[in-house]
Amino acid sequence: MIRHPAFCVEPWSVRECRLDLDVLAQTESVFALSNGHVGLRGNLEEGEPYGEPGTYLGGFYEVRPLPYAETAYGYPESGQTVVNVTNGKVIRLLVDDEPFDVRYGTLHEHERVLDLRAGTLTRRALWSSPTGGQVRITSTRLVSFTHRAVAAIRYEVEAVDDSRHVVVQSELVANETRQYTSGDPRVAAPLESPLVLEENLPAKDGVAIMVHHTRASGLRVAAAMCHEIDGPDGTRIDAQGSADVSRVTVATRLPPGRRLRLVKFFSYGWSARRSRPAMHDQVVAALAAARLVGWDGLCSDQRQFLDAFWESADVEVEGDAEVQQAVRFGMFHLLQSAARLEDRPIPAKGLTGSGYDGHAFWDTEIFVLPVLTYTYPRAVADALSWRRSTLPMAEARATQLGLSGAAFPWRTIHGEECSGYWPAGTAAFHINADIAHAVTHYVDATGDTAFERDTGLPLLTGTARLWCALGHHESDGRYRIDGVTGPDEYSAVADNNVYTNLMAQQNLREAAEAAAGHPDLAARLGITEEEITRWRDAANAMTVCYDERLGVHQQSEGFTRHGVWNFAATKPDQYPLLLHFPYFDLYRRQVVKQADLVLALHLRGDAFTPEQKARDFAYYEALTVRDSSLSACTQAVIAAEVGQLELAGRYLGEAAMMDLADLERNTVDGLHMASLAGVWISLVAGFGGMRAGEGRMCFAPRLPPGVTRLGFRLRYRGSLLHVGVTSETTSYRLLEGPPITLTHHGEPFPLRTEPVTLPNPPAPAPRQQIHQPPGREPASRRPS
Amino acid sequence: MIRHPAFCVEPWSVRECRLDLDVLAQTESVFALSNGHVGLRGNLEEGEPYGEPGTYLGGFYEVRPLPYAETAYGYPESGQTVVNVTNGKVIRLLVDDEPFDVRYGTLHEHERVLDLRAGTLTRRALWSSPTGGQVRITSTRLVSFTHRAVAAIRYEVEAVDDSRHVVVQSELVANETRQYTSGDPRVAAPLESPLVLEENLPAKDGVAIMVHHTRASGLRVAAAMCHEIDGPDGTRIDAQGSADVSRVTVATRLPPGRRLRLVKFFSYGWSARRSRPAMHDQVVAALAAARLVGWDGLCSDQRQFLDAFWESADVEVEGDAEVQQAVRFGMFHLLQSAARLEDRPIPAKGLTGSGYDGHAFWDTEIFVLPVLTYTYPRAVADALSWRRSTLPMAEARATQLGLSGAAFPWRTIHGEECSGYWPAGTAAFHINADIAHAVTHYVDATGDTAFERDTGLPLLTGTARLWCALGHHESDGRYRIDGVTGPDEYSAVADNNVYTNLMAQQNLREAAEAAAGHPDLAARLGITEEEITRWRDAANAMTVCYDERLGVHQQSEGFTRHGVWNFAATKPDQYPLLLHFPYFDLYRRQVVKQADLVLALHLRGDAFTPEQKARDFAYYEALTVRDSSLSACTQAVIAAEVGQLELAGRYLGEAAMMDLADLERNTVDGLHMASLAGVWISLVAGFGGMRAGEGRMCFAPRLPPGVTRLGFRLRYRGSLLHVGVTSETTSYRLLEGPPITLTHHGEPFPLRTEPVTLPNPPAPAPRQQIHQPPGREPASRRPS
Repeated sequence: MIRHPAFCVEPWSVRECRLDLDVLAQTESVFALSNGHVGLRGNLEEGEPYGEPGTYLGGFYEVRPLPYAETAYGYPESGQTVVNVTNGKVIRLLVDDEPFDVRYGTLHEHERVLDLRAGTLTRRALWSSPTGGQVRITSTRLVSFTHRAVAAIRYEVEAVDDSRHVVVQSELVANETRQYTSGDPRVAAPLESPLVLEENLPAKDGVAIMVHHTRASGLRVAAAMCHEIDGPDGTRIDAQGSADVSRVTVATRLPPGRRLRLVKFFSYGWSARRSRPAMHDQVVAALAAARLVGWDGLCSDQRQFLDAFWESADVEVEGDAEVQQAVRFGMFHLLQSAARLEDRPIPAKGLTGSGYDGHAFWDTEIFVLPVLTYTYPRAVADALSWRRSTLPMAEARATQLGLSGAAFPWRTIHGEECSGYWPAGTAAFHINADIAHAVTHYVDATGDTAFERDTGLPLLTGTARLWCALGHHESDGRYRIDGVTGPDEYSAVADNNVYTNLMAQQNLREAAEAAAGHPDLAARLGITEEEITRWRDAANAMTVCYDERLGVHQQSEGFTRHGVWNFAATKPDQYPLLLHFPYFDLYRRQVVKQADLVLALHLRGDAFTPEQKARDFAYYEALTVRDSSLSACTQAVIAAEVGQLELAGRYLGEAAMMDLADLERNTVDGLHMASLAGVWISLVAGFGGMRAGEGRMCFAPRLPPGVTRLGFRLRYRGSLLHVGVTSETTSYRLLEGPPITLTHHGEPFPLRTEPVTLPNPPAPAPRQQIHQPPGREPASRRPS
Repeated sequence: MIRHPAFCVEPWSVRECRLDLDVLAQTESVFALSNGHVGLRGNLEEGEPYGEPGTYLGGFYEVRPLPYAETAYGYPESGQTVVNVTNGKVIRLLVDDEPFDVRYGTLHEHERVLDLRAGTLTRRALWSSPTGGQVRITSTRLVSFTHRAVAAIRYEVEAVDDSRHVVVQSELVANETRQYTSGDPRVAAPLESPLVLEENLPAKDGVAIMVHHTRASGLRVAAAMCHEIDGPDGTRIDAQGSADVSRVTVATRLPPGRRLRLVKFFSYGWSARRSRPAMHDQVVAALAAARLVGWDGLCSDQRQFLDAFWESADVEVEGDAEVQQAVRFGMFHLLQSAARLEDRPIPAKGLTGSGYDGHAFWDTEIFVLPVLTYTYPRAVADALSWRRSTLPMAEARATQLGLSGAAFPWRTIHGEECSGYWPAGTAAFHINADIAHAVTHYVDATGDTAFERDTGLPLLTGTARLWCALGHHESDGRYRIDGVTGPDEYSAVADNNVYTNLMAQQNLREAAEAAAGHPDLAARLGITEEEITRWRDAANAMTVCYDERLGVHQQSEGFTRHGVWNFAATKPDQYPLLLHFPYFDLYRRQVVKQADLVLALHLRGDAFTPEQKARDFAYYEALTVRDSSLSACTQAVIAAEVGQLELAGRYLGEAAMMDLADLERNTVDGLHMASLAGVWISLVAGFGGMRAGEGRMCFAPRLPPGVTRLGFRLRYRGSLLHVGVTSETTSYRLLEGPPITLTHHGEPFPLRTEPVTLPNPPAPAPRQQIHQPPGREPASRRPS
């Protein structure tokens, strides 16, 4: 297991005790701050060294042509790439004319702390310059949850041993050069100098403003900064601006023990429509609001916001400190990715890195939103409103593909399909059912009928229509969906993928339900009784392939007749397989990149018997290599359900450490939002056995070895619950809201103001011998 | 039906009676001259107007990067593109300072004739310049079959009405600009100025030489020209060379009725290894040989060469003058593509255009070589020797793909895989069995055991090993080949494609046979008894999917359960479907681009009963849209076999007119060699019922309506046969060689010096109602 040697395991923070430049790039992702609108990677203030400089704005992208060696009808001609916008984090320091650079001089102490309750990243360094001048540097930064456009840094320098000349340069820098490149196709395409300067107004009057636009996407971005400076008398302040840099220079002489303190407020705005003057004014106004509140005000607002979040989202894990830290780290980053979305997508990496070009995938709807649905539902409404806003594009795409309804993009920022490889892009039509799934569960959990009507029904209708266009009734009456790609990207363009078919079935049924519930809007959407009947007929006749000989479901038709991947001949360094073997060979073998049939066992558990789940899980365990971060949590959930609690615990551990231990060696490109969500899913859906839908909230808690107590909170139908699980019992408490009926291990019970404590029945005895492909067992952890 | 309005139907020539600039580009392909080493498009001598200027050398290419929007393991990083090399065809003319350009002045007469027995292209024009000067221009050009490096043009200008100042400029021009572009992915990628000048020596001493090299592939090309000039006294000759042009200028004053005659000899050479001086000398030497023979000598050698060719290759068709012309046109171009290959590939377009980047595909082995095997076998040995020479590349590719043996490229010039879309490239592994098929049939037809040993066995072994690596025995013992693409490019990456499996079966068996026949070489190739047993076991257990419910074979496993393409909703202008619908939709429907299962009915007819053939043909007829030129002839062959003679005749007509009538509207990119071969295949394998293999040559002749007599010649096992078919009888004659046993409609009979005439049994009554998708019936022709 790869461990960051310097991360400390603490319940409410991620602390790095010393600086290790080998993992600098990864820590930039781990220490990223964001509110879903503005995202700052955890770059050092002084700008260098860096892994990848990163300042992102939700939804802000540049377009680039997508090239094809052999093109074909319907291929997207242009892609979208997240842009590293104007960097407001930069604060350079000179001590007696020596630049503060951790690679030179002596770094006596260096600590960074991401505080999950304060919502801040604090850094403390004690450094001697090559000529021996010693300073103590302390910085704290935040991206405000309450002021959407605002970030701030409090930066302090103290002369330690002697009097020092200190110069601090606080900057806005656009078009930063980027050194990091990769041969991995999952990494973002690099953009060279994507921003064109429109205005660079130096901070003569205290506020510096830079306005740029992108060349091809034509988006305009404005950034502004201002400062509060507290230094000794004689401190001199200057401002310059030229080309893509705006600089405020603070020069002073610090007697020993004296500090120079600078609070930097910076703000961002972007628009596809608004003019340069409007954007200029917008960022200046945001700064004005921030200064009014002040640094202390921003910090206390931040904590208040987070206190409220943890009140409904916290998970307590006793007996496993690493998982305790990881689940809070994950929830914190989920909140950061989603809190202030306001009709923008949640990218696979949030705003923590440029991996996957900053695109949003199905990860959001299937992994991230189901967690937020029960912990921070407002963000779910936002994220799905964004999907709703892209419905016209999805409808146009369906038309282009010769289909009806809406075909949502496999990957996008703005809404257009950006996938340059259709077998693992356009063909992955399950994204549409995944969106429907998120809609349905959000509506179920919140009872938000206004949302169901205005956002939900249009989404359900577009996607249901797509399934009717994609599938057909065979002569025997079965409904087939041929030639599509399921979640497992080591198979593609196959017939009757069970996951896809079952999710489409649910989509069709839920659309029929929702249309029946809103007849007026349904009529306006052109939904007829006949169409609803077609939806129900297709759903009822849906093909689900089962191999009678083996007694297991087929991931897709014919899958179990394929040759099994030669795991014995595959060397450990040949994983992930996609980097070492051609797709054609992966596609025609029984080898599974990530939970696919097993994800169906989770999300459509109602379609399988317990016996089938156990057999299917055992069969697919032996084939699943987990070359994706979107797998461990699902395997944890089903392992727990079939009674493989120890195995489930190991998958939980893997999901938990994905980014904190950089298990896939690509945390540099940003955090895996879905895997972070997966820690919560493993705990709550796995060991809490939580399943919700159709007005019912069910639990079947059972703890894995080592965890002595699990506590979690969730919101359902206006109630806030606390569930506390020990190995013997589960206690249910109603923290807020009306009484509610819950289900404990299949038995309904009412929960009123009094807590209810119920015994946990013993786990079913594992019926199957479970094994993974050799070397692909879940990562083991050191005991913590 | 699109007809070239100016082509005359003549038995031994293609005559264009007037110039139609709208089809100029197509006629450049039709009138292309080549010997397989040097190819000249039928561009007008004066250089403009042109559709696409084209001078090609067999095997000469430039490399270019292949871009991918999302790359993956095993994708080829660079492609190869045929280069338009130094143009030696250019002869410009000025008449009283007015350039001869058919777009200006008045073109009173214009005729071009491709003479299929002379092997020349002759042009006659009578033109008045805008100022009224009238001249008669006559040119004849040839690319010599006997002097591989040499082409020549005899060019005459005659002043008609009055005395004229005439200037003729004969040139070598490199890096010609090209205006023609297309959005069709099947068209070549354009290269801008691909040639770098090394030497330009003007014709001061009579011979002009230019040497260039390509930037990336590093190939060197040399071209030279010299002239014999016959004009009135006072004719002045100059030579200049600068940059990429070398020019000989002939100025004279022509009295009325007098002619200026110029014979231009030009020669080419290219090499990846030889130096500039060596290449320089090589082309000069080629010119010297040509001048020694002289124009008349070149012409008489050309005719003699063709006389010998027609002696063993001619096909006579009575009752259908268009088909008569087309089959000879086709055979002529096949010869042109292959006569002087000498270890280079035969591209899909020969050397007639830059379509498909000048690449060779499976077309060669499955359509072109089987025709040449029985008519000009020497070229088959050459073409397969080229494959043999690329075996190390194919073995390296197999290794890269994680396979054993040899994986030949789907498309290439030099031997490396150049396909930028693997589902219709690398996955089309049938190319390997196709090569084996060509090897086996060549050896069967010629008894060339030296070839079998040195070229055949290594090819058969490499491909057989590939099939062993690609397939696997399922638990029930059946041998499966999963996830490959058959000939039909509207399906891809499917399991157990019947064509692929049956061709692989044959490949495995033939490899086992050949290895047994050459035990010493087999041992050196590392072939063990055990390996041979594995080959035979795999062949014997090969899966062939059959739909019991429908009583037809499945093109690939599950194919007949897919939804049928919505033909009713497809508009006529939406063909070819690949330009109007996404692959994902084509792949998951029952719609067939080109004969696939039906090609298996032809090439592996032994694996099907007559009843199965009839049912399969009827089933797949209704699904086949023929968006490929590689289909009509196969449909003709099987239609004839199942007794659908009228339909077979219509497919014959379509194959015949593919390029002469530009049926697919892309003759501009070059002629379809496989379709040209298809005319012979339709006639000989279709109406002659010819099937050969394992030492047997069988016929089952039956004529379609309208054809009153069919005669064809072919070589088999050292004998030259003539087969003459009327509606009642078939006469067999031995023209050369030893007596032979033939089969007539299933009955063997000996053929000695005496002709044998046998009655043709009546065709089987068609058992099935045959129909094609609406609007996709074979093109109908005007009665001729």
